[in-house]
Amino acid sequence: MTNVLVGIDLGGTSCKIAFLNSEGIIIKKWQIPTIIENNGRQIIPDILSSISEKMSEEGISKESIVGIGMGTPGVVDREYGTVSGAYNLNWVETQEVKAIFSEKFSAPFYLENDANVAALGEKWLGAGDNLKNVVFVTIGTGVGGGIIVNDQLVTGEYGCGGEIGHLHVTDNPNFKCTCGKIGCLESIASATGIVKLAKYLAEERNSNSELIAAINQQRNITSKDIFNFAKNGDAFSIEVVYEFSNYLGIACSHITNILNPSKIVIGGGVAMAGNYLLNEIQKAYEKYVFPKAKDDKTLVLATLLNDAGVVGAAYLAKVGIIYK
Amino acid sequence: MTNVLVGIDLGGTSCKIAFLNSEGIIIKKWQIPTIIENNGRQIIPDILSSISEKMSEEGISKESIVGIGMGTPGVVDREYGTVSGAYNLNWVETQEVKAIFSEKFSAPFYLENDANVAALGEKWLGAGDNLKNVVFVTIGTGVGGGIIVNDQLVTGEYGCGGEIGHLHVTDNPNFKCTCGKIGCLESIASATGIVKLAKYLAEERNSNSELIAAINQQRNITSKDIFNFAKNGDAFSIEVVYEFSNYLGIACSHITNILNPSKIVIGGGVAMAGNYLLNEIQKAYEKYVFPKAKDDKTLVLATLLNDAGVVGAAYLAKVGIIYK
Repeated sequence: MTNVLVGIDLGGTSCKIAFLNSEGIIIKKWQIPTIIENNGRQIIPDILSSISEKMSEEGISKESIVGIGMGTPGVVDREYGTVSGAYNLNWVETQEVKAIFSEKFSAPFYLENDANVAALGEKWLGAGDNLKNVVFVTIGTGVGGGIIVNDQLVTGEYGCGGEIGHLHVTDNPNFKCTCGKIGCLESIASATGIVKLAKYLAEERNSNSELIAAINQQRNITSKDIFNFAKNGDAFSIEVVYEFSNYLGIACSHITNILNPSKIVIGGGVAMAGNYLLNEIQKAYEKYVFPKAKDDKTLVLATLLNDAGVVGAAYLAKVGIIYK
Repeated sequence: MTNVLVGIDLGGTSCKIAFLNSEGIIIKKWQIPTIIENNGRQIIPDILSSISEKMSEEGISKESIVGIGMGTPGVVDREYGTVSGAYNLNWVETQEVKAIFSEKFSAPFYLENDANVAALGEKWLGAGDNLKNVVFVTIGTGVGGGIIVNDQLVTGEYGCGGEIGHLHVTDNPNFKCTCGKIGCLESIASATGIVKLAKYLAEERNSNSELIAAINQQRNITSKDIFNFAKNGDAFSIEVVYEFSNYLGIACSHITNILNPSKIVIGGGVAMAGNYLLNEIQKAYEKYVFPKAKDDKTLVLATLLNDAGVVGAAYLAKVGIIYK
């Protein structure tokens, strides 16, 4: 086995790791728990020893590894390969991740934030069709993004490129964002946002709706519940999904009117709602996008799902993107 | 005189032309009228003979010209160097501009649309400080834009990159855009948009305002009048400028939340309102932009004004950008 890429996708509860060939085919994929105790001191050593172990098992020599890429939460310094502010990993101090990897491996090591790495994965081998201009929008607890222009990540002057979740979409003061602003996309159109939106809209209603009943009974509702109610024909839930999708459609139209990417890939947990959600976003998008850019090919659902991170990290290692 | 760049900025009423050195210093600058009669058949021959004439006058040989760049209205095919749909030039058929230039000059010829060329000018030698990531927003009759990421123009899948004027900023059905949509930025925040906005807001008012008086007398009001009234303390005009700037601030926040460019350069006729306008846009921008990206350095006024086109065209010739 030669020309092996190592892709690492570090998260707050587990770390996914894979060996891939230069075409991005996964040779071996596994995951280990992320031990955040003791200020997360064990996280990087655990990853390193797990990689060594699997190398022995798979008969992969150090020399056959041509690059290592890693996606991480927190703020990344791409040049020095350090991470700061990764609070969900309990990393209180800046972590010299690249330096530690470089002690053990001679292959080049690249570090990038997790949303950008997932964007690279979807761009390379997912719904991005390996096109040069791809935007990834991930709808989960919040809304994140990764912007790829001319095959390069756009991070921007202060690293705020791709802050799709903080596009201002409503002046309604009921939608306060964790960032301190009013009316950010993720305050109304994320997994948590849609629940807030449902509760807000329910206040004005008196309809015969399963969702309104659940809200009035103070049951714990998730975005998945709302989509399921809507798919089952609950009229109020359909309206909530319509409003939710409208904001996402506006945001996607902004992306197109500024960059006109070849693909806007929609991923994250909420995107598991699938084609129903995609079609609703598409309808709204067509209302707001510049007519010449209107088509039914730009908006697509992510396809790599949980593999996007390791594939994107391997792509990073393959092409060695460093870009401000 | 050696290493001469030729910059051409073709407009509907006149064509600005300049000889520049490789640092972008203008050696000679002049303009000729754009004769649009006879389907604009004379436009390109006029430009060519004017250039030849000035070359003789300035003692510039054909061999000393290292590149020719041109900005034009209409839709540009960058590869073939053709223009279509330039209705304000009366060009009904696709024009083989590059082919005509290549017959006369051996130096490489590059064609780009006028807003992008102005963006390149401001990026290179204007308020963009020659940084890699610069967005140009031009506020005139409409609102246009040019997006430069990593030193390259972003034109996008259907050439709709930089359609800043068509960002959706309001659901108010009174603001219909020429593109057919409702609530595009340029329908409310351009030279024509601000007049519509003033008339719309005036309907609900009964105040003692010079602007409202002018509207009620059906006088012909321009954006300049509104800014002048506002600068003279007319409370209603101040409110109109505030609303107008709010929409521009939202649009600039979208640009930053997606790309986080180093500079957003604000130009065009309306930007002649100067620092008063810039400060109003800045105040709105700070309300809507992602907090980590907030600063007072990103938004700047254009500095090259009428020279942006010829300077940008020369830059195009210097670096030979072709980019989708």
